[in-house]
Amino acid sequence: MSAASLLRAEMAEQPRVLGAIFTRRAEVADSLRRAGAVPRVGVMLVARGSSDNADVYGRYLLELATGLPAAIAPPSLYTRYDSQPLLDGWVAVALSQSGETPEIVATLRALRGCGARAVAVTNAVSSSLARESDVVVDLACGPERAVPATKTLTASLAAIAVLSGVWGRTLWTSDDEARAIGAVEAVLADEEAALPAAEAVLAAANVTYLGRGFTYPVALEGALKLRETTGRAAEGRSVADYLHGPVASARTGTHVVACAAVGPAARDVLAAAADVAARGASVSLVAPADLPGTSTQAPGPAVPPGLVEPLAVLPLTVRLQQIALLAALQAGLDPDAPFGLEKVTLTT
Amino acid sequence: MSAASLLRAEMAEQPRVLGAIFTRRAEVADSLRRAGAVPRVGVMLVARGSSDNADVYGRYLLELATGLPAAIAPPSLYTRYDSQPLLDGWVAVALSQSGETPEIVATLRALRGCGARAVAVTNAVSSSLARESDVVVDLACGPERAVPATKTLTASLAAIAVLSGVWGRTLWTSDDEARAIGAVEAVLADEEAALPAAEAVLAAANVTYLGRGFTYPVALEGALKLRETTGRAAEGRSVADYLHGPVASARTGTHVVACAAVGPAARDVLAAAADVAARGASVSLVAPADLPGTSTQAPGPAVPPGLVEPLAVLPLTVRLQQIALLAALQAGLDPDAPFGLEKVTLTT
Repeated sequence: MSAASLLRAEMAEQPRVLGAIFTRRAEVADSLRRAGAVPRVGVMLVARGSSDNADVYGRYLLELATGLPAAIAPPSLYTRYDSQPLLDGWVAVALSQSGETPEIVATLRALRGCGARAVAVTNAVSSSLARESDVVVDLACGPERAVPATKTLTASLAAIAVLSGVWGRTLWTSDDEARAIGAVEAVLADEEAALPAAEAVLAAANVTYLGRGFTYPVALEGALKLRETTGRAAEGRSVADYLHGPVASARTGTHVVACAAVGPAARDVLAAAADVAARGASVSLVAPADLPGTSTQAPGPAVPPGLVEPLAVLPLTVRLQQIALLAALQAGLDPDAPFGLEKVTLTT
Repeated sequence: MSAASLLRAEMAEQPRVLGAIFTRRAEVADSLRRAGAVPRVGVMLVARGSSDNADVYGRYLLELATGLPAAIAPPSLYTRYDSQPLLDGWVAVALSQSGETPEIVATLRALRGCGARAVAVTNAVSSSLARESDVVVDLACGPERAVPATKTLTASLAAIAVLSGVWGRTLWTSDDEARAIGAVEAVLADEEAALPAAEAVLAAANVTYLGRGFTYPVALEGALKLRETTGRAAEGRSVADYLHGPVASARTGTHVVACAAVGPAARDVLAAAADVAARGASVSLVAPADLPGTSTQAPGPAVPPGLVEPLAVLPLTVRLQQIALLAALQAGLDPDAPFGLEKVTLTT
C-alpha cells in the first residue's frame, strides 16, 4: 500500500492547506465587507461534482450560522431556462477549483445579473469564475493534478466554514480549528486503519455511504470519490431519505459506510447502521472515537475525539478519501487518472 | 403482464386525479390569497421520498414562474439543528401524501415559526400536516394503498404546476393541461411499450436514470420507483452531475434510462445518452415522439408529442411507473408491497 501516487501526495498537503485558510479569516472578512458581499436576505450556492458536495455542507452551515435561508442553485435553471429570480440582498457563492467549468461561470454571472453579490471560491484566482465575481476566496492549494479532488474539496469546506463565521455567529473557537487540523494529520498518519473498509467496499455487490446533517455531504463526497477512483457505482444518501425507500435494496452483499460525528444527528446514523446490518448488509462506521453508542456497531476507521461537528467533517472526509485511494490500489487501478474523466468538466 | 395489482389500478386513476386538480385552480388561488400565502421573497419546499422528487420539480418551476428564489429545506436542519432562518415574505410548501411523516410536520411548523406562510400539499386534509398549515391543497386522490406512490406523486406535480400559475406567470394554457392528461391516458393504454425497458433494467448489473432540468425529477422518481418495486439499487442523476464523475461507472452491463422532453435541456440528455452508449452501456430513451434528434438514439417507450415541457413530466413519470411495475412482475415480485417498506415513514 505504499505506492507513490499524486492523489496520496495531494491528500498529505491538507493540514497545511486547511491551516492557511483558517488563518486568512480576517483578510477574507475585509474583502467581503469592502465589496458589500454580506447577505441580508439569503445565500445561493453554486457548484458541480465534488464542489457540489461542499455546497450541501454550505446549505447546512451557512443557514445555521447566518440565520438566513440558504439555497442551492441548479445550474441548468440559469444556463438553459433563463431563470431570473429577484436576488437583492443575496450573496451567491460559486465553488470551482479550476474556475473554468462553463456552466458554473455562466450561473454566477446570471445570479449576479439578478442582484446578488458574487463570491468565487476557487483555486485559480485568475480564472473566468474569478472575473465574474465581486470577491475571490483563494483556496491557495497549489496545483491539483490527480483527477479526484481532495485538497481543493476540504479547502472548500474550510472556506465555507470561514464564510459562516464572517457572516454569522461563530459556532467554534480557533482552538477547535487547530484540533480539527490535528485530527486530519492524525488520520493521514494512520492510513492503514482505512484498509478493512476499502476491502469491504471492493468485495460488496453494492455500496452506499450514509450520513445525516453535517455528515450527509461527507457521505456524498465519499461515494463520489470511490466512483472516481474505482468506477464502482457507489451512492451517498442522507439516512432519512434512505429509510424512505432505498433501504429496500439493503441485503447481504451490500456494504454501508456510515458517517457520523458527535452531534444531534448521530443517533439517526447509528440507528440506520443497525437497521441495515439487521437486513444482512455489512457496515463500516466512520466516526470519532468518542461517539457514544458506537461500541455495539461494526468496526470502521475512526477519527480523533473532541471535535465540534461542523469541523469533524474535515477528518471524516479524509478517511473516506483513504478508502477510495486504497480501494483503487487494491484493485490494481491508478487512482490519479480514473478512466473516462477529465480534470475540468466542460458541461455547460 | 395482466396480473391485477393495486399499483396498476392506482396508476390508472391518474388522468381523473390530475384533471380534478387542474380544474380546482381558481379555488386554490382563492384560499392562498385569503391566507396571505403568496410569496414576496422566496419559496421553501419540504418533503421526503417520492414527494422530495416533486420538490425538485418545484425548485425549477416555482422559481421560473414566480421570479423569486426557491429552496429545498433539509428537514434535519430544523428537526435536529434548530435552524431559525428569517423567512418573512416566504411561503413554505410541504408535500406529504399521508400528512403524517413526523419530520415533515415538524419542519413545516418550524418554518412557519420563522415567518413563512405554510402550505400543505397532501392527500389527507385532516392530517397533522394540514393542522400545521395556513392553506391545504387537497390532492383528492382517494386512498393510496400500494406502497410505491404513483397517483399522489403525479398529483403533487400537478399541484405545484397550479401553484406556479397562481403565484407567477402562466407558462401554458388549459389546452396544454388537457393535452398532458390525454398523454397520460395514451401512455396508460399502451403499457406493453414499456416492457423492453423493464426487461433491460432487470438484465443490467446497474441502472441509472438520467434527466436534466424538468426531466431531472422524472429521473429521480423513476429510479426510486424501480427500487421500491424491485429492490434494485437504481439511481437518478442530472446529466451534468453524472458527466462530472459518476459516468466513470458506465460500461457494458450498465443500463441507462434517459428521460427527455422537448425543451432547452433535451440536447444535453441526448448527448449523454450517446456518450454512455459509446462506453458500452445500453440505453432506453423515454421521450416524446416529436423530440428532434431521437432517430439515432436507442429505442425506448415514447410519450405523445405536442406537450409543453413542464407538463410533459406527467406522462414521462407514468412511463417510468410502468417500467417499475413491469420489472417487478417480470421478476416475480409483488409491486404493491415491496419488502421492508411501510407506507408512512416515521423518520423524525
